[in-house]
Amino acid sequence: MTHHIELVEVSARDGLQNEPGVFPTIDKVELITRALVTGIRRIEVASFVHPGRVPQMADAEAVVAALPKRNPNDVTYVGLVLNKRGALRALETQVHELGAVVSASDGFGRANQGRTADETADDAIEIIRLAKEHGRSVQATISVAFGCPFDGEIAVSRVADLARKIAAAGPREIAIADTIGVGVPNQVKALMVAVKAAAPGLPVRLHFHDTRNTAIANVWAGVESGAATIDASIGGIGGCPFAPNATGNVASEDVQFMLQRSSVETGVSLNGLIDAAVWLSGKMGRKLPGLVSRAGGFPKVDA
Amino acid sequence: MTHHIELVEVSARDGLQNEPGVFPTIDKVELITRALVTGIRRIEVASFVHPGRVPQMADAEAVVAALPKRNPNDVTYVGLVLNKRGALRALETQVHELGAVVSASDGFGRANQGRTADETADDAIEIIRLAKEHGRSVQATISVAFGCPFDGEIAVSRVADLARKIAAAGPREIAIADTIGVGVPNQVKALMVAVKAAAPGLPVRLHFHDTRNTAIANVWAGVESGAATIDASIGGIGGCPFAPNATGNVASEDVQFMLQRSSVETGVSLNGLIDAAVWLSGKMGRKLPGLVSRAGGFPKVDA
Repeated sequence: MTHHIELVEVSARDGLQNEPGVFPTIDKVELITRALVTGIRRIEVASFVHPGRVPQMADAEAVVAALPKRNPNDVTYVGLVLNKRGALRALETQVHELGAVVSASDGFGRANQGRTADETADDAIEIIRLAKEHGRSVQATISVAFGCPFDGEIAVSRVADLARKIAAAGPREIAIADTIGVGVPNQVKALMVAVKAAAPGLPVRLHFHDTRNTAIANVWAGVESGAATIDASIGGIGGCPFAPNATGNVASEDVQFMLQRSSVETGVSLNGLIDAAVWLSGKMGRKLPGLVSRAGGFPKVDA
Repeated sequence: MTHHIELVEVSARDGLQNEPGVFPTIDKVELITRALVTGIRRIEVASFVHPGRVPQMADAEAVVAALPKRNPNDVTYVGLVLNKRGALRALETQVHELGAVVSASDGFGRANQGRTADETADDAIEIIRLAKEHGRSVQATISVAFGCPFDGEIAVSRVADLARKIAAAGPREIAIADTIGVGVPNQVKALMVAVKAAAPGLPVRLHFHDTRNTAIANVWAGVESGAATIDASIGGIGGCPFAPNATGNVASEDVQFMLQRSSVETGVSLNGLIDAAVWLSGKMGRKLPGLVSRAGGFPKVDA
């Protein structure tokens, strides 16, 4: 079994993007800086999407410009892009890595990107090509891979086919995302096997939402199945646009607690994440979904 | 892997016992009746403990007397007891099964029962003997088996030794409880192996609190490790007396969602549990910790 897992912090992008209201640029920069302090070394910092559609991300360029300058051998700032236009915007900034998004379903692809699933794969391939031409790292995420709010169940073979197609373009990794939080551990295992077979040798990142309380179980199933990297969000912010009362991305501190207590190394400080979650809860003026920041670690030391 | 799991509903006992305020007897009876309607067939209905220490359970006899009369071949009402005095009270009622509690640590044993760990095992053996003499079913739960708020880490061998000692008295099952919600899947697997070896042939029940978001992952690890029965609480009520902001027992509807979507049968209706959680949330006047009742099932049918 894997004894080291990389955590990617997504609160500043996927987290804030799905929260009501607009988080000030200066607070985003502080959130990202606090994530760096915990030991996290890859961070989604912004999304280069239409500011009219996603006002929470309208300050993408300003956020990147204000980030602490870090050596790309040490820290990776990731900018999400959905198409060529977004990629060109991101390439004008100093983000180290572009993240492309492929929808596993036509319904979600149309709602999120105005494109069918196959068209989102074509867009991702173009983004990967552009990023590589400009000497930037690039990854791709297959969204709604565990189920779609419009099209329902998604066949494992469909996700594997998309992974195969994207892998041929040469991203650094493929991610499988449970965008609406409907996945269970058996699905994680089946998708891991299928995607690893479809994209041999390519690291797999997993992205879970805790909408139905299965995210930590899915993270563990992913670790057991050989995932290299796990996305998580400080405080568990993020919500779900398709379930108004739902919780968000799996909380970084909850993931870290489980991994640390399972002797899986991440290089990240649990107490640091708890501090960041408490700070973020104060900034947002409400109790956040993550649980470990309320209950504390166990035993009461940051082992 | 197991394809059938029994759910035990504990909201009316472990749930309400750890909630502030006293829930009226009539509402407890309605909660239990609603659990029956969902298809649950074993229910913790009361705790026969000192009413001064646990005022929430002072109406134990009244609750049992008011329950729908059900054939013990169909439905099992469980009464929790901590010592001979409690057992004698429970035996005066019509509960079908007595539940004894053994503390894995001296610190928790003293705080919860005024007894060392070994003394709680002696008490459990006496309770088992008494129940059997009176022709009642009886089970035993090893509490704080995953960690103790006073004594810290608990050795797996300690839990196994207690299981061996209790098993010799002949309960119908042994349960392993993560009373304060610090367990992780690796611990579940290690404890399952050790307890099954210590008490060969005896079914194992698992009891998890979702204090640090690991409960669903632990349930799944338990299912994969051959647990027969899982405790859960409608709405996830319960809290934790050692962590004021903490969530409670793992929510029955969240467990059911994960098991149902994993093709593990329980005989329980997810929509029924969601209805009960929404009702309970209304009765308690607050949002409850369970997540599936907020987000709904997936796909949108009760398969």
